Amino acid sequence: MEFDLARTLAILERTPATFRALLGGLPDELAQANEGLDTFSPFDNLGHLIHGERTDWIPRARIVLAQGAARTFEPYDRFAQYRESQGRSVAELLGELDRLRGENLATLRGWKLTERELALEGMHPALGPVTLRQLLATWAAHDLGHVAQTARVLAKQYREAVGPWRAYLPVLDR
Amino acid sequence: MEFDLARTLAILERTPATFRALLGGLPDELAQANEGLDTFSPFDNLGHLIHGERTDWIPRARIVLAQGAARTFEPYDRFAQYRESQGRSVAELLGELDRLRGENLATLRGWKLTERELALEGMHPALGPVTLRQLLATWAAHDLGHVAQTARVLAKQYREAVGPWRAYLPVLDR
Repeated sequence: MEFDLARTLAILERTPATFRALLGGLPDELAQANEGLDTFSPFDNLGHLIHGERTDWIPRARIVLAQGAARTFEPYDRFAQYRESQGRSVAELLGELDRLRGENLATLRGWKLTERELALEGMHPALGPVTLRQLLATWAAHDLGHVAQTARVLAKQYREAVGPWRAYLPVLDR
Repeated sequence: MEFDLARTLAILERTPATFRALLGGLPDELAQANEGLDTFSPFDNLGHLIHGERTDWIPRARIVLAQGAARTFEPYDRFAQYRESQGRSVAELLGELDRLRGENLATLRGWKLTERELALEGMHPALGPVTLRQLLATWAAHDLGHVAQTARVLAKQYREAVGPWRAYLPVLDR
């Protein structure tokens, strides 16, 4: 599918409500369950998205739009949430994601990006040159990947309980 | 994780709102996109869950609880939604899922199931004997599998648009 900014905004604006519907008020043993050592629980997924709102998507978009001499993005810390979410509740994180995403989408909408701007490039520290359009597409796909991961991690808590149905539920062994 | 009925109800009751957050008002080209021939779009996932509300989970639970002579479940039609959802809108399906799930969970709660009842068996047409506990666990895991599938199908619409980031987004090639 061709990249479309309005469609991408429609996905990005849905993510906080999707996490709220999935995780708001869910028993904590489910929100904190994961797939084993160094894997993300639903709680960790939320913290990871919050870290991205603060340090990744909009800061990187600003670097691209500025087209200054230094266009290389800061590397992204995939495990920052283990530190930053400590002692916080799911409810707090849901509120923070909602607020930060709202602010970031207001910024993005305010830019009224043109096709020319969407084609501007920045430098990813590992992947090399990337366009602003690719960055925004990645933001949306990354959100959806973490919705899928959160649902999968929750599903896996039923791996034993489903008995013989496991054979029909590929999500339990992914 | 041990099966727990309250926790399972907490998951089952969240599903309609999760789908509403993900899909309500989403542009139709996204709601109808899929992963290729005979794969489910987000719209198909919704129709599939609705078919399950009507024909699968509670009807099967009734067969188990009745402990009659015939305890074999009807086979489940995984493709019924291609027929049943024709000409309907995402908004209609979201409303129907919400209503049917609400009715079914009221039924389930009304049963006030005991441990003895949760251990009763029915006969799956392909998998053999299964308990009511396994059926309810499968209902929840199946929901979450379809949340994950819906998010993954949406993410895949960005497979090309993300450019080199594809290497970091395993959901795009799952």
